[in-house]
Formats: sequence, structure tokens, C-alpha cells
Amino acid sequence: MIKDEDFISSQEVPGPSKEEIRCLVLCKSQVSANDLVVDIGCGTGGITTEMAKRAKKVIAIDKNSKAIDLTKQNIKKHNVDEKVDLIKNDGISALKSIESMDIAIIGGSGSKDELDEILELAISKLNPNGRIVITAILINTKLDAVEKLKQKNLNPEIIEVNVSRGHILQRGIMMKAENPISIIYGKI
Amino acid sequence: MIKDEDFISSQEVPGPSKEEIRCLVLCKSQVSANDLVVDIGCGTGGITTEMAKRAKKVIAIDKNSKAIDLTKQNIKKHNVDEKVDLIKNDGISALKSIESMDIAIIGGSGSKDELDEILELAISKLNPNGRIVITAILINTKLDAVEKLKQKNLNPEIIEVNVSRGHILQRGIMMKAENPISIIYGKI
Amino acid sequence: MIKDEDFISSQEVPGPSKEEIRCLVLCKSQVSANDLVVDIGCGTGGITTEMAKRAKKVIAIDKNSKAIDLTKQNIKKHNVDEKVDLIKNDGISALKSIESMDIAIIGGSGSKDELDEILELAISKLNPNGRIVITAILINTKLDAVEKLKQKNLNPEIIEVNVSRGHILQRGIMMKAENPISIIYGKI
Amino acid sequence: MIKDEDFISSQEVPGPSKEEIRCLVLCKSQVSANDLVVDIGCGTGGITTEMAKRAKKVIAIDKNSKAIDLTKQNIKKHNVDEKVDLIKNDGISALKSIESMDIAIIGGSGSKDELDEILELAISKLNPNGRIVITAILINTKLDAVEKLKQKNLNPEIIEVNVSRGHILQRGIMMKAENPISIIYGKI
Repeated sequence: MIKDEDFISSQEVPGPSKEEIRCLVLCKSQVSANDLVVDIGCGTGGITTEMAKRAKKVIAIDKNSKAIDLTKQNIKKHNVDEKVDLIKNDGISALKSIESMDIAIIGGSGSKDELDEILELAISKLNPNGRIVITAILINTKLDAVEKLKQKNLNPEIIEVNVSRGHILQRGIMMKAENPISIIYGKI
Repeated sequence: MIKDEDFISSQEVPGPSKEEIRCLVLCKSQVSANDLVVDIGCGTGGITTEMAKRAKKVIAIDKNSKAIDLTKQNIKKHNVDEKVDLIKNDGISALKSIESMDIAIIGGSGSKDELDEILELAISKLNPNGRIVITAILINTKLDAVEKLKQKNLNPEIIEVNVSRGHILQRGIMMKAENPISIIYGKI
Repeated sequence: MIKDEDFISSQEVPGPSKEEIRCLVLCKSQVSANDLVVDIGCGTGGITTEMAKRAKKVIAIDKNSKAIDLTKQNIKKHNVDEKVDLIKNDGISALKSIESMDIAIIGGSGSKDELDEILELAISKLNPNGRIVITAILINTKLDAVEKLKQKNLNPEIIEVNVSRGHILQRGIMMKAENPISIIYGKI
Repeated sequence: MIKDEDFISSQEVPGPSKEEIRCLVLCKSQVSANDLVVDIGCGTGGITTEMAKRAKKVIAIDKNSKAIDLTKQNIKKHNVDEKVDLIKNDGISALKSIESMDIAIIGGSGSKDELDEILELAISKLNPNGRIVITAILINTKLDAVEKLKQKNLNPEIIEVNVSRGHILQRGIMMKAENPISIIYGKI
């Protein structure tokens, strides 16, 4: 895994996802070398970069041009730029232009309606044996994502992850908490 | 309980303990209206102030004069200054001058040796039915405090508390984590 | 606080709430000696018993006759039976028969519609300066409770609490996790 | 990742490590296809099996013959038995017979002295660029492992992981907590 600080980042763009969350997203997605991955809302490019190291190809989508720019820098820095296509567009429009995928990654946010349409579209384009993974920091997103996957018979699972990281000081080890994140995932 | 933001605070002095931690310390101490409480390392005065609202008397100790000053302001602001004695001194020296107490509160830090001597002294001065509560942010302190209380036959218990607080935004509820804190407690 | 194991309990009835959750509910409710508390869904009677030790009066409601029976045993065991009225009825019907209250406690569960009506009724009967506290183990309940309190201008807050308890073994201290619980609260 | 329930397990043998912990151990170990991994205290064989799917070879050690037997069944079930050597022996003796390794995995337990000797031996046999990962459920182990790695200049890091898993019920999503686990890791 790449360390958080080894991504080029900016206060204007969310991410990168913390290393432990990236790690768990990789595991839950069951990514392998033949997979086409679509990362909807790529932000800083943390998950896009990690996926590109393991998958066949990644399509990274973000409507924010600064996010696309940062992702571009990070895939270049980590030598996976040849495996990534960047699309500067909103998730819904971008998904409409994609034919199919093995893995959809969604950094949940936006409105309920928007999430709903993104999930609907992404699921409709999953290949047989396709997988979808949503990371959520809003309680609303957790619930909406599980409901949608249930409705689509994807047999969703959800975990909530609280990670604290140790700071090893002279006088002892102090743990500092990362914000809790939920990962919701399902499979065709 | 007093809200965190209703304490006068300073970046130079630790605290106040988060509201939920103050609440749990009060519960675990089983404080009641006849108790003499000694707060060793009072910092901003968060626990001193809450204890003073419920106990007979609180002696608040800190070697940092800025901490003593802040605690003075907070007990005044919350109208409990008549129930609090302030001692600007290190914990060990201050404890030597105190005859007995019902409840000892220790905001664990300092070296292992210092903690050890503070615990030794505090326990030796606990009244029958006396209680001791240590809050720890260092892994080392957790272990040392439990060991010492075990050695003194105080039958220690320890909890680790992870609290996240919701931020209610336009687009949903986001949880933000407080750092984990352990509370170690025992009874004569 | 009363230890979990000092409540008479039964596998057929939920509760008692863990000691730390009871403690935090007490703090968030700001209970004092003049308060009339209504505990909707009292289960084993854990919160009813703790509230009865601090409030003027508690009305404990449960539709399950085994819950009412257990609560009866627990308030008797802890000598607060004279301060508690028991109502064996569903929350909505019982609330309709109550004129007013200072504190409403709701152990969230049941359907969204049921919760909605209980919250509506409870809030309508809160005295000036009244408070409401909901404990939630379902993600759905967290969201629904916050939404309702927001809609009623109660300025809701929500915390999520993860407590682990130490088991002090020969070879060291092992922490065991309690299930996460959210506490949602607001004030007139 | 393999689901917890897809391992053959027994109440007499600890493990398998929860899926999320196995996932994080894999990430922190930075395992790749050329690595020789030694799993000291393999228990049910959860980490051994996952490592065997990604590494060149795994040596799995346990002094408990039931653990060795279970691990044998699990590597067979998951078709990686050809990549695993099993050693039924205590960690210290077994390590003495191993020349070198790229990754040492230690499911911390046993006494402080035993852990100390295992860490000393394992670190001494790490190849250049070798890594060591310790999972700890005891507070004592966390501290001892960090101290030892610090003393050996391995620049240790420690994370504490609290995972809750959702149970999707008719009436909503309930989260159930797994016990907190720490992962300590360092690199030559």
C-alpha cells in the first residue's frame, strides 16, 4: 500500500482515503489482474492509483477539474498512468458513456437522488460476477446504499471501521482516531 | 453536563476532557454529596468543575500555573469556586500535604515512576470505600495503572471509549471521531 | 451506577443497557431531582431504575408484560419502586394518557412510522425546557430520530459510542467490544 | 479475501482472524509473489492461507497439534497446500531452524519473555527489506511489541482497529462489534 503522505494532495479536493480504508476497499472489491474498474468520484486519486496497480484498467471519474488534475499527478507519480483513463464529468453522465465494468467504486456523497441514479446505472453495467463498493461517511449514504443494493438483489454487506493510529512519543504511545467510515459492498 | 465550549480553554493547557469522558468519570467515581475529591493534574479544570457541582469539596492540583489559572476561571464561571481549593504544585508534593480523600482522579501522564508514586500515595490516603479513577491516553499508562491497582488489591477495571460526534450538515449526518481514551478505576 | 449484573435480566427481554450507555443517557438528559421522566420501552428497567434514583418520578412503559415484570423486580431490588409507575401498553397509547413530562427516553426500535408517532407525541408533551433522549442500535433509527428532532426544531445532537471493556487475565489485559450504540438528544 | 465462515474452525483453536484483520495484515506486510513468509502461531490457518495465495512460500508454525491439523485442512480446502510447510513446534525452537524470511507474522500472545525472544529471533532472520507484522489483542503485547521494534530500529507503527459488521434485519441495519485488535508493524 501507498502511504497517505505519498499522494500529492490539496485541501480543495477530498482524499486520499486513509491507507487502511484503501486496503479494505481493495479486499472487499476482490480486484484481480483482469478487472476493469470504474472509480466514480476519484478525488485525489488514492483508490484509483491502488486499483491501477492491481487491475487491468481503471476509469476515474470526477466532475471537479482539480480532482482530475490531482489524480493525473498521482497516477503519474506512482507509475500507473498508462492503466488509467480520466473523465472530467459528473458521475451520471460519465457512467452513461461506459459500456460495462467488473468493479464499481463509489465515494458516496452528493444527494440521495444522485446516489440512487449512480448506483442504478453502475449496477446495470456490472459484468457477470461484477462487484460494487461504496465508501460512506454520511449516515444517510450508508442507509441509502444498503437499501439500493438490497432492492437490486446484490445481497449487500456493510462494515463500519474505526481506526486509530499510534503516535510513538518519548513518554509513550498515544492513539489518534481517524473518522469512522463505512464500506458497503455487494456482488452480482 | 457542561458543554466543552462552555469552558474557558487555552492551547497551552490540556483539556477540558470531552463531555462524554467527564460524564463517564463521574459515573465510575460514584461521586456523591459527601465526598472529598482530589483532582491530580486538573488542566483546564473540566473534571474539577463537574466534580465540584456534585461533591462536598474538590482539591485541584497542577504544577502548571497556567492550568491553575484556567481552572480558577472555570470554577468561577460555573459558580463552584467556593467548593474548590487550588494547589499549584506537582502531584507528589501536593498529595503528601493531603490527609485523606474519598475520590482520587488522575489524568495519567508523566513518567511511569511519577505515575507509580502518585498512585501509591493517592491509594494510601483513600478513605474506607474510597475510589480512584485514572484517565489514560497513552497505552503505557493503561497498563501501568491497571498493574498498580491490581498490586494494591483494588480490583481494577478498565474501559476504552471511542466516541464519534455527529455533524448535521445539509446533505446528511457526518460522524467525527474523538481520540480513544481509557478509564481505569478501582475501589478500596 | 448499578453494575450490569446487578439487574435481574432475562434472555426474552432486551437490556439492561450497558452501564456506560446508562451513564451517558443520564448525562445527556440532564436529569435532576424535580424531573418527571417517561421511559418508553423500558425493557429490563435499567434506565428506569437509574432515573428513579435521580428524578422525582418515572413512568415506565412497555407493551411486553415480561418487560414490565422485570422492571418491577429491578426497581424493587434497587429500592426505587415508590418512584416508578408502570404502564403495560404500547408507547403510542401510553403516551396519549400522559399529560406532560420533563424528560422522554426512547429505546428506539419498532417501525419508522411507530417511532415517528412516538417522537411526535413525546415532543408535544415535553414541558418548557424538556429534553428527549433516544438510544439507537439501528442505522435507520439514528437517521429517523435526527430528522424528526430537526423538523421539530429541537436542534438534535448525535453521538456514536464504542466501548470496550478490559478483561484482566493472567497473561495480560484483553479488551472486548460492546456493540456500538448511538445516542440522539435534543431540548425544547 | 476468504470469508470467515469458509475456514474450517474449532472452538479449541483460536482464529481465523476476522476477514478485515487478515486484509489489513496482508496490506501492512506488503506481501508479493517472491516473498517467503513465516507465520508464527498459525492457529486456524487464516493468515497462512491468505498469505499462501499471494507469496512464494509460507512456513506455518504452531505448538498445538490441533492448530496444525486445522491449518492443514484449510490450506487444502483453499488449494494452497503445496505452498505451505507446517511445523508443529513452539515458535522459538521452530524459528531457530529457519534460515531467513521476507515476512514474519506473529499472532502475539504467550508471555512477555517468550514474545521478546520470538521477536528477537524473527527480526534477526529477516532478509534485507524484510517486514514483521504482529497482531495483538492484549494491551501488554501492543506495548512490548512496539518497544522491541523500536529497540531494534525497525521504526514501528501501530494501528488499533475497531470493526463493526452490519446485520441487515427486516426492521433495519444493526451493527455488531468485533473485538478491537492492534496491528504493529515494522521494516528492516
